[in-house]
This record gives sequence, structure tokens and C-alpha cells, in this order.
Amino acid sequence: MPKTISINAGSSSLKWQLYEMPSEEVVAKGIVERIGLKDSIFTIEYGDDQEYEVTKDIDDHEVAVKMLLDQLLELDILASYDEITGVGHRVVQGGQYFDQSVVIDDDVMQKIEELADFAPLHNPANLMGIRAFKELLPNVINVAVFDTAFHANMPESNARYSIPLEYRKEYGIRKYGAHGTSHRYVAERAADMLDRPLEDLKIITCHLGNGASITAVENGKSVDTSMGFTPLAGVTMGTRSGDIDPAVLQYLMNKLNIDIDEMLNILNKKSGLLGLTDISSDMRDLEDNMDNKDVKIALDIFADRIRKYIASYVSTMNGVDAIVFTAGIGENDANARANIINGMTWFGCEIDPEKNNVRGKERVISTDDSKVKVLLVPTDEELVIARDVESLRKND
Amino acid sequence: MPKTISINAGSSSLKWQLYEMPSEEVVAKGIVERIGLKDSIFTIEYGDDQEYEVTKDIDDHEVAVKMLLDQLLELDILASYDEITGVGHRVVQGGQYFDQSVVIDDDVMQKIEELADFAPLHNPANLMGIRAFKELLPNVINVAVFDTAFHANMPESNARYSIPLEYRKEYGIRKYGAHGTSHRYVAERAADMLDRPLEDLKIITCHLGNGASITAVENGKSVDTSMGFTPLAGVTMGTRSGDIDPAVLQYLMNKLNIDIDEMLNILNKKSGLLGLTDISSDMRDLEDNMDNKDVKIALDIFADRIRKYIASYVSTMNGVDAIVFTAGIGENDANARANIINGMTWFGCEIDPEKNNVRGKERVISTDDSKVKVLLVPTDEELVIARDVESLRKND
Repeated sequence: MPKTISINAGSSSLKWQLYEMPSEEVVAKGIVERIGLKDSIFTIEYGDDQEYEVTKDIDDHEVAVKMLLDQLLELDILASYDEITGVGHRVVQGGQYFDQSVVIDDDVMQKIEELADFAPLHNPANLMGIRAFKELLPNVINVAVFDTAFHANMPESNARYSIPLEYRKEYGIRKYGAHGTSHRYVAERAADMLDRPLEDLKIITCHLGNGASITAVENGKSVDTSMGFTPLAGVTMGTRSGDIDPAVLQYLMNKLNIDIDEMLNILNKKSGLLGLTDISSDMRDLEDNMDNKDVKIALDIFADRIRKYIASYVSTMNGVDAIVFTAGIGENDANARANIINGMTWFGCEIDPEKNNVRGKERVISTDDSKVKVLLVPTDEELVIARDVESLRKND
Repeated sequence: MPKTISINAGSSSLKWQLYEMPSEEVVAKGIVERIGLKDSIFTIEYGDDQEYEVTKDIDDHEVAVKMLLDQLLELDILASYDEITGVGHRVVQGGQYFDQSVVIDDDVMQKIEELADFAPLHNPANLMGIRAFKELLPNVINVAVFDTAFHANMPESNARYSIPLEYRKEYGIRKYGAHGTSHRYVAERAADMLDRPLEDLKIITCHLGNGASITAVENGKSVDTSMGFTPLAGVTMGTRSGDIDPAVLQYLMNKLNIDIDEMLNILNKKSGLLGLTDISSDMRDLEDNMDNKDVKIALDIFADRIRKYIASYVSTMNGVDAIVFTAGIGENDANARANIINGMTWFGCEIDPEKNNVRGKERVISTDDSKVKVLLVPTDEELVIARDVESLRKND
């Protein structure tokens, strides 16, 4: 049976999932952590709850991939490398080049490298994963699946910032968004669940994890999204500020005598729920501290900012059929979902507390009377990657 | 008859309006421009279209006020200074100290000075006007009317930015908003026009001039507003960017090799409609260039961003009874109003093109069937200032 690997490579990690196609069955998955550091950790889950784990120094991504391929044979997960018919790679930034997944050739690799300017932490790491597989499995198709692709064709009026035009034209400053693979997947699932064609629907998808973004999906296309030039913009996140008056940066930089890089580090790493509470970036920790006034305010802010984005996207599409929750918080935190939707009765949104009392299951969680349907859809970016590989392989 | 002067002092200008009270009749008004520069210009309009204008060097605000008071006698607009029973001063930044207009004493002046840190261009200029009147009319009550006061009691969850809590507590970083006097006035007028108590209404007020802000007014109180820590935030304005991913600042500062002050200067002075079109910050100039693709996009952006804020505030109040347009663009640009509201049929907002074909008149411009009423209300900040003076004078 042909098998596809989905890869998500970070600067010192490599997450992977191996699918049998076309059944889409996950036959194994794993993660290599601390690549390039001492005591790297190599883990595989396979079969019926079987686990393989080893701790040893793994120098780079190529060594990690070699070890992974060896181990897949060793553990009889693969009979031979020939079973691997495609490798899909998550790539964070596709810029203005890519509005869909593509087969990776030299030109694509060069463009991903060039775009590292916009995603300095991610694109170079993604490339390390790609190079390792290309080196070790030179005859297998490699596909890049971009986080930004789903948003690449939003109307120019939503993509553009109100800054001098030359920065748009010369430097490519625009809204790129993120989580595109997830927004696309859950919108498609929502259409299936509602038994209506995606092309007829106005859907607002809320990907709420440690990073969070809201997307307006009209006729199956992303027409606006809350993340911006980078994943810092939009709603309040675990450690990220989301939207803020840019003059605050100037004021604080002068008061604290720090430079813009340090300021951005604060907005990316020390803000959001963590900054607002000084307790934790994790919603679960905060929900255990509801007697703390600042925690209460932080959770209100979290819900309010998301609700405002949802409402603003109702105006963007002049309507909404369904609101979809996904990712860590969206799938597992019934309180957070209720806090967001309970303030939207005027919009015809009403959550059914009983249906909402669920974690990580596909389900309509609005009342039968709710004019706007509210859905919970667990996301599955790895599966989208595997599907895109399979689809491009067949057309190749 | 008692008379009240409303003062709006800038760093090199002093605008004023003289009211007879309680009739609220404007008996004279004028402006002193280029104070402290060569060839200052001093203008008074009074009586039946009478005008007085002189050009001469005016060294400072005290000289300007002295000249104004002398000329009011000279032109027989006043019989004696005793007719002036109160002076009201617009003050831009009232910070966390002032949630309503106050009689100005030494403590108030000290606080206005202290708050110059948040409004370095405005508060010191406002103070110059206050000092001049206190010096020249020592026995007359002076009242400060703050642009921020109307927003001072918004819920903490709307005021707070998602940044470390210490910046809120130690440096007072929060949303202060602006145009408060205008938002308050037009919301009150809207309630009158709809013949309903302000306390029962959910109103969204759109102050659209060269600076622009949107406010959610619930039960007569501002519960959220689009301007932020400074008047840079929110919607796209004549030369201001409004909201933007803060990471754009970092990227551009590094690319252009500029510091944060220069970056903020670009976002305040060279962005907005001017930056997006490279033609003009003035809506009228742009509407003459609709064949230019970037102008078309800029006008879409202008309307879209405002529409999004309106929609988001519908969620903030979980409803809306009326949307109010005011200020230069809001009062005079029927196209702009239509562009904003025409995309909101789902919200139950519908403009009547015939009723909308009007400039600067109080009028309901929505259709009779429109669930949400849309109103045009010319603003009158000077009148609010005069009324606040009169009301505080009587209680003094």
C-alpha cells in the first residue's frame, strides 16, 4: 500500500505522521526533539499502542530523518522505502508566490529560502526537513503545504495595510495570515456536517490554540483573517498581544529604553494571557484562578476580542451561516466557547450547554433554533498535508 | 446677558466661540493663527456676516487672548468684560484623572501638565490657553472639557491591552480614546431625534473627519472606542494608519534603517488615505480619482475598516439601535456613508439614497423599514464646552 509522510519541521524538532493511502489510516507517528542539542529524544508510536523511544545525540535534521527511515524498517512498519510514495512538508510562509500546495523543485526551495525574511524562525527550519528527505529519498515526490496559501487570494482591500503604498509594492508588506491549512480543513468539514456545498456558505473559523486566528471563509475561500504580516496580530493569545496601538511601542521603548527587537520579543513572548495575568499562558491554569480579578479580566478580554473579530467578519461577508471552533482551546474548552458565543444572541447565535459539554469531537453545539450554526471540528493539518501530497502525486 | 467662551488652543493657534447663555446663541467666533510666528492672523466673525481680520506678529497665547478681549470691546461685541461669566477649554488628554468636565484649579492644571507625557503636542498647548485666560480674567471660572472623559469609564476589559500588567499599572498604558465630546453630543442628539431615552439605547457613533473614531455608546456611556492609547489606532484616517500588525514596525525599521520616532511619524503623517493613494489625505480629492485602482482600493479600505468596527461594537453591546455619522466626512460625504452601510443589510441597516443625499443637517437617513436607524448629526463640540461651563458655573 502506498504511504505518505506528513512533516512539520521546527528548528530543533521534526514531527511526523505516516499515512497509508488512500485509506488515510495513520500507521505510525512520532517526534524527534532537541535536534542539534545533547540528548535528543526520538519517539515513535505505532501499531496497537506500541511505543519506541530512544535518547541519543542527533546532530541535524538529516541524521534525524535517516534514523527515522531506518527505524521504520527495523520496527516492520515499512517493508521497504519503496512503500513511501510522497512526503508533505508544512511550510509556514508562502508569501505572494504560493496560493496552493506545490511539488518542491529547486525553484520552490529557493523561494521558501527567500521568504525566510518574513518568517525567520520557521522557513529555514522547514527547509531543513525538506533537504533531509530530498537527500535520503531522492526519487520520492516532496510537496510543500503552506500555512499562508489559503489566505493568499483575499481581496486586496483586506490584505493591504494603510501605510505608504511603496512598502506594499517594494517590500511585500501585507496581511499573510497563518493556520491556513487548519482553517481550510475545518471549513470543509463544517460544510459536510451541515450537508451544504462549501461554495454556498459563509463560515467563520476560529483556530484557538496557543496561537489563535479567526478567518472569514466565503464560498470556500479565505476573504479575511485576523493574523497579519506575522502571527502576532489579531486576537489575544497565550503569550502574544494581538492588535495594539502602535504608539504604545514608541512610548514603552522610550520609557524602558529598549529597542524594537526587544519590544517585539515582549509582545510575542511575554504578553497575551501570560502578560495580562502574570500567572500563565495556559487557559487551563487560568480557569483554576477565577477568584483573581486580573484573571477574570484576561478571560473576558480573550473572549471579547474573538467575538469582535467574529462580528467584524459577519460584516465582511454581510452574513454568516456557521461559526467553527477548532485547535487546543477551541476543541477542548467548553467555557471559552460559551463565553464567546453567549454574548451574541443578537446575531442569532445560541449555544446548547449540553451539546457544548464535549471535547475534541465533531459536533454541532448550537441549539436547534440558533439561526447561525456553531460547530466544534477537531483540526487535522497532517491529514490535509497527506491528501495534498497524494493529489499532487497523482497529477505529477 | 452672561456669555461663555469655548476655547480650543493649539500650539500656534487659538480657536474660540462666544455664546450668549442660556440662549446658546453664537454672538461671535474667530481664530488666531501663527501665534509665535511672523505675520500672525487674527480673525473675528460677528453680527450679520461682519468680519474683522488683521495680520500682525502675535508673540504668545497671552498676547493673543489680550488682543481678543480688547477687540471684543472695540467691536461692541461686549459692553464690558464682566459679561464673560465663564471660559471653557478643550483639553485633549485627561488620562485616568478626569471622567467629566471640571473647574480648573492649580491641581487640575498640574495634572494636565503631567498628562502631557501622553499627548505631547496637545496638552501643553491647551495649558497655554488656560494660563492666558486665568491671567487676564482672574475672577472668571475656567472649565476643562476633556476629549477622553467620555471614554474614561469603559469596562476595564475594553481599556486594557494584552501586554504585561505592569505597563498598565505603572505607566498607565490603556485605551484612552478621543473625540469624546463629539461622541457624547451626537449620541444625545440621536436619542432626542429618535424620541427615546438615551439610557435605553445602544448607539454606535462614527466621528469621521481627518481623524476618525468609532464609539459604542450603551445606556449613554462609552463602552468602547476605536482610538487607543493615542489617536493613531483604529480605522484608516487621512494620514494615520489605524490598526497594524506591530511586527510591521520592526520589519520596516530594520529595512529602512529608521528609529521608532521616525516610524511613528510615518504612521501618523504619511499613512492612511494619503499613504494608500500617494495622492491626497482628503476624501474629496480621492473621489475625483476613482479611475485610479489604488484610490478605489483605499476607499474600500476606508469603508471596510469602519464597517468592521461598527460590527464589532454590535457584538460589544449585543445589539444596536442606531448608527450615527458626524464630523467632516460623516456629515458631508454621502458616498462614504453609503459605502459603509450598504454592506450591512444582514445587520438590518439600510440607507435611503434620497434621505442620504444631504450635507450637514440633522436627519434620519435610513429607510423606514431599516431595523437599525442610521442618522446624520452635525457635531458641535464648542456648544458642549459652553454648556459644561454654564452647568459647572451654576454649581460652583
